[in-house]
Amino acid sequence: MSQKIRVTVWGENVHEKKIPLVGEIYPQGMHGQIAAGLKESGNFDVRTATLDQPEHGLTEEVLAQTDVLTWWGHCAHGAVEDKIVDRVQARVLQGMGLIVLHSGHYSKIFRRLLGTTCSLTWREAGEKERLWVCQPGHPIAQGLGTYFEIPNEEMYGEPFAIPTPDETIFISWFEGGEVFRSGCTWKRGNGKIFYFRPGHETYPTYQQKEVQLVIRNAVNWARPEGSPWIDTCPNVPIDQAPEKITQQGGSLHKAGEAGYR
Amino acid sequence: MSQKIRVTVWGENVHEKKIPLVGEIYPQGMHGQIAAGLKESGNFDVRTATLDQPEHGLTEEVLAQTDVLTWWGHCAHGAVEDKIVDRVQARVLQGMGLIVLHSGHYSKIFRRLLGTTCSLTWREAGEKERLWVCQPGHPIAQGLGTYFEIPNEEMYGEPFAIPTPDETIFISWFEGGEVFRSGCTWKRGNGKIFYFRPGHETYPTYQQKEVQLVIRNAVNWARPEGSPWIDTCPNVPIDQAPEKITQQGGSLHKAGEAGYR
Amino acid sequence: MSQKIRVTVWGENVHEKKIPLVGEIYPQGMHGQIAAGLKESGNFDVRTATLDQPEHGLTEEVLAQTDVLTWWGHCAHGAVEDKIVDRVQARVLQGMGLIVLHSGHYSKIFRRLLGTTCSLTWREAGEKERLWVCQPGHPIAQGLGTYFEIPNEEMYGEPFAIPTPDETIFISWFEGGEVFRSGCTWKRGNGKIFYFRPGHETYPTYQQKEVQLVIRNAVNWARPEGSPWIDTCPNVPIDQAPEKITQQGGSLHKAGEAGYR
Amino acid sequence: MSQKIRVTVWGENVHEKKIPLVGEIYPQGMHGQIAAGLKESGNFDVRTATLDQPEHGLTEEVLAQTDVLTWWGHCAHGAVEDKIVDRVQARVLQGMGLIVLHSGHYSKIFRRLLGTTCSLTWREAGEKERLWVCQPGHPIAQGLGTYFEIPNEEMYGEPFAIPTPDETIFISWFEGGEVFRSGCTWKRGNGKIFYFRPGHETYPTYQQKEVQLVIRNAVNWARPEGSPWIDTCPNVPIDQAPEKITQQGGSLHKAGEAGYR
Repeated sequence: MSQKIRVTVWGENVHEKKIPLVGEIYPQGMHGQIAAGLKESGNFDVRTATLDQPEHGLTEEVLAQTDVLTWWGHCAHGAVEDKIVDRVQARVLQGMGLIVLHSGHYSKIFRRLLGTTCSLTWREAGEKERLWVCQPGHPIAQGLGTYFEIPNEEMYGEPFAIPTPDETIFISWFEGGEVFRSGCTWKRGNGKIFYFRPGHETYPTYQQKEVQLVIRNAVNWARPEGSPWIDTCPNVPIDQAPEKITQQGGSLHKAGEAGYR
Repeated sequence: MSQKIRVTVWGENVHEKKIPLVGEIYPQGMHGQIAAGLKESGNFDVRTATLDQPEHGLTEEVLAQTDVLTWWGHCAHGAVEDKIVDRVQARVLQGMGLIVLHSGHYSKIFRRLLGTTCSLTWREAGEKERLWVCQPGHPIAQGLGTYFEIPNEEMYGEPFAIPTPDETIFISWFEGGEVFRSGCTWKRGNGKIFYFRPGHETYPTYQQKEVQLVIRNAVNWARPEGSPWIDTCPNVPIDQAPEKITQQGGSLHKAGEAGYR
Repeated sequence: MSQKIRVTVWGENVHEKKIPLVGEIYPQGMHGQIAAGLKESGNFDVRTATLDQPEHGLTEEVLAQTDVLTWWGHCAHGAVEDKIVDRVQARVLQGMGLIVLHSGHYSKIFRRLLGTTCSLTWREAGEKERLWVCQPGHPIAQGLGTYFEIPNEEMYGEPFAIPTPDETIFISWFEGGEVFRSGCTWKRGNGKIFYFRPGHETYPTYQQKEVQLVIRNAVNWARPEGSPWIDTCPNVPIDQAPEKITQQGGSLHKAGEAGYR
Repeated sequence: MSQKIRVTVWGENVHEKKIPLVGEIYPQGMHGQIAAGLKESGNFDVRTATLDQPEHGLTEEVLAQTDVLTWWGHCAHGAVEDKIVDRVQARVLQGMGLIVLHSGHYSKIFRRLLGTTCSLTWREAGEKERLWVCQPGHPIAQGLGTYFEIPNEEMYGEPFAIPTPDETIFISWFEGGEVFRSGCTWKRGNGKIFYFRPGHETYPTYQQKEVQLVIRNAVNWARPEGSPWIDTCPNVPIDQAPEKITQQGGSLHKAGEAGYR
C-alpha cells in the first residue's frame, strides 16, 4: 500500500458564498476545510470539486482517478445533474468509496444508492451532540475514546429512513433529547459507503480534530479493494455453456445479442 | 385476518401482442395468467394493470388500494414513466409489498429500490432449471419439497448485481451449468420485496403449479404489517424539544419551516 | 389466525424472593407481572416457567406447545443447565419466537444464538430513559408515538456487542448521557428473536403500559410463520441424485449413513 | 502493511493417519498441504497446529500471535475441548480472522460463532463441482475467472443452516444436480469469518491452484483491521456519567462493581 489514496472532496459551495456567517466560518469553502483535514494524512492525494464547475467538477477523468469521493451538499441537491449522479453511482458500484456528510443524506446520489427517502427529524439550535462509538475495534473509530462531543450542532433525530446498515459505527445523543445513527456503512456493488452525520454549515464542525480524524479513517476504510466490478449483462451463447446443451422451445434473441436494457 | 389481500398484477403486455409464440402461450396476456394463478387463493382480491393504460394503470387510487403489487416487464422498461416509478416507490416505502418477476430485474422500480445495476448473465436455450429451497421453513417455500424443476426456461446466471438479500429462499441449478439466487427478499422502508426468477415469455412457466404456489405464498408474505410509514422530514421547534434547550450559535432556518429538499 | 398464540414467560425468580425491594414491586414475581401484561391481549394463551422448577419448567412438552418464549434472567444465568439451553436453541431454530428482556442480554440462550459476548456498559442510577422509534411502521412499534419514556431505569450503554441486527426498532436516550440499541431483531434458523432493553428489577418497568404494549406487539411479530425447520444433515445416496452420476474416486462413507457429527 | 500476516493452520489430522487413502493424498497432513499453499504468498508467516498437541496447539501465546486462523476438522469435532473453543471465540471477537474449511461447518467454533446448526445435505460420489463467482470485484475472488471447477469433490447441498451471510462470494453447481453457498462471509465482534466449502479428504483438493489462491485471498481479506475489541462490561459510576445525574430509586449494585455475569 505504498500508493497514495486519491480523494476527491465534493462541495456544493453555495451557502459559503451567499450567507456571511457560513463564509466567515469556512473562508476556503466547506470543501476547502474538509480537504485541509484530509491533507493532514500524508497518505492521501486530495483534490476538490464543486457544483459550479463544468460537470460539477466530476468528469469521467476525475472520477476514474478517484479512489474515494466525499460529498457535502444541502440547499442545491436538485441542481446536481442526473447524468453526473449516474456517473458517480456507476463508479461506486465498480468500487470507488463514498463518504456522505451531514445534509448529504438528502443528496441524489445517497438516495439513489440506498433506495429509500433518507429522511429524519431535525432542529437547528446549536445544541451539544455526543457521538458514541458502537464498534470500538472498527477502522473508522480508531483514535477515539468511548465517545466524543461537538459543542454546537444541528440535531438530526430518528427515524432515519435508511435500509439496515451493514454496521452502525456511531450513535449520537443530543442535548435536546433525541438520538441518531450518526455513522453507518453499506456496500453497494463493489463500493463501500459511509454516512457521517456532523457538519451543519453554521458551526465550525469540520475544524474539530475528532471529526477530521473520523473522515480520514473513513477514507482509509472506503478505499477500493479487490478489482473494479465492471457491469455487463452478457449473453452466454449456447455453444459456450459450461455443460453441453441444445436449444429447446421458442426464443426471442439471437446468439450473443445484447438483450433488452 | 378476515380481510382479503388486494393484489395488483402489473404486466408490460407487449410481447404477448407482438410475438405470435408468446400470444399463443399467454392468450390472456402474462398478467392474465399470473392473475389467474393468484385467484386460486380465495384470500386475494386480484386486479391487473398494464403499460398501455393511462398512468400504466397505476393511479394514486389503484396504488392506495393495493396491498401487494407484482411486476413483470421486459422489452419496455424504458417506457415506464418516471413519475409512476416515483409513486410505486413511495407506496413500497410506506408498506406495500412488491413481487418482482423474472426480467423485472431490469425494471426501473427494482433498480430504484435496490440501488445497484441488477445485471446478470443469461442464455435462452429452453434448458432445465431446478430451484432448491434454502429456507425450508420460510412462508414463501410452503408446500414445496426440497426442490422443484421447470422443464424449459431461460438461464440467468451469477453474478447477480444486487445488495445482499435479507434472505435467500431459492437458488437455481441450470442444465447448462450455471447457478442463480432465484428467490431473494429485502425490506425497504416498511415494504417487503421479493424477487422471483422464473418466467421467460416463450415458455408456459406461469402455468406451472409450483410457480403459481410460490407467487401466492409470496403475496401472503409481502402483505403490509404494522402501519404505513408516511415519510416526512419534520423540523422539531426548539420549544418542543423533549429536553429544555435554548438556541445557541447561528442558524439558517426559521422555526417549523420545511428545510431544503 | 383464529388460533391463540401460546406464550411461555420464563423468569429467573430469584431476586423477587431474596431482595425485599424487588419482592415489593413484583409480588407475583417479574414473570407474573410480564404474564399479566400479556394476558391483556385476548389473543394469547399465557403460561409461566421458572428456574426452580424441574427442567426449569421448560420440558420438551412445554416447548413443543410454545409459540413464543420470553426470557428474563439476571443473577443466575449460570444456573441454567446447558441441556435446557440446547433444547430452547433447537426450538428457536425450528421456528419458536424468542423475546429476550433486559439483563437477559447475558443469558446463555441469547449469547448462544448470537455468537458474541453481548456485553455493554451500565449504571444503576434510576435515571430517565427515552426510547425512540426507529421503524415507525414496524409491527413491534404499533400504538406508540415517536418515543416513550420510562421515569426510572438502569442505564445500558453502547457498545452493545451484538452482530448487526436485522432491524433496529428502538434506540434509547439516557439522562446521564448514553445511548443504546434497545430494540433489535434477528432471525436464526426459522425463529425470530427480539431483544428489548427495559426491565431492571428495582423499578416497576413491567407495570408501565408502553412496555407491556411493546412486549405484546413483539409476541405477535415473533409467532411462527411457515412450518418448523426440522434439522437433519441427510446423506443423499448416489442413486437418488437429481442428475444421474456414478461414483468416482475414494470414499469414507457407506450409502445413506449418518456421517460425523 | 510491511508486516507479515501471521497465519495458524489448524488441522484435525486424524484421517490422514487412520485411512491409507487420505495419508497417500496428504502425506504432510491436510494442514501441511494447506500451509504449503499459503507459503506461496511471501507475505504470510505460517505455522500449523493439530488436535493431538497440548491445548490442540492453540495456547494463549499462539493465538495472541495469530492474525488469521484456518480450521479443518471432520471426524473429531467432539474431541476439541470447550475451553479451547472459548479461547478461539474470544480471539475472533477481538479481531482475529477465521477461515473455516469444508467439514469445519460442523466444528464447535463455527457453530458457536453463528448460533445455528450449520447442517446441509451431502453425497460422497467424487462428482464435479463448479464454483461461480458472485462478487467479481471482491478481494477473495481476485485472480479467478467467472468460475472454476474441481474435478472430484464431495457434494454439499442446500439448505445450509446458517444465518444470512454478509456476502455470498461463491455458489457451487454440482454434477449430481445440487447447489450450495460455498463461500460466505460474516463479521462477529471485530473478527472476519470466511467459510469455504471445498476440501474432502479423499480428493487432492488442497493441491489445486484455484483453491490455494482463494485461501490466500481469504487470509489477506480476514487479517485484523482497526484495533482489538477487548470485551468488558463496565459499570459507569454515577459521578462519571457524561451528564450530571443523581441516584434515584432502589439499587442492587455498589458503585463500580462488576455485576452479574
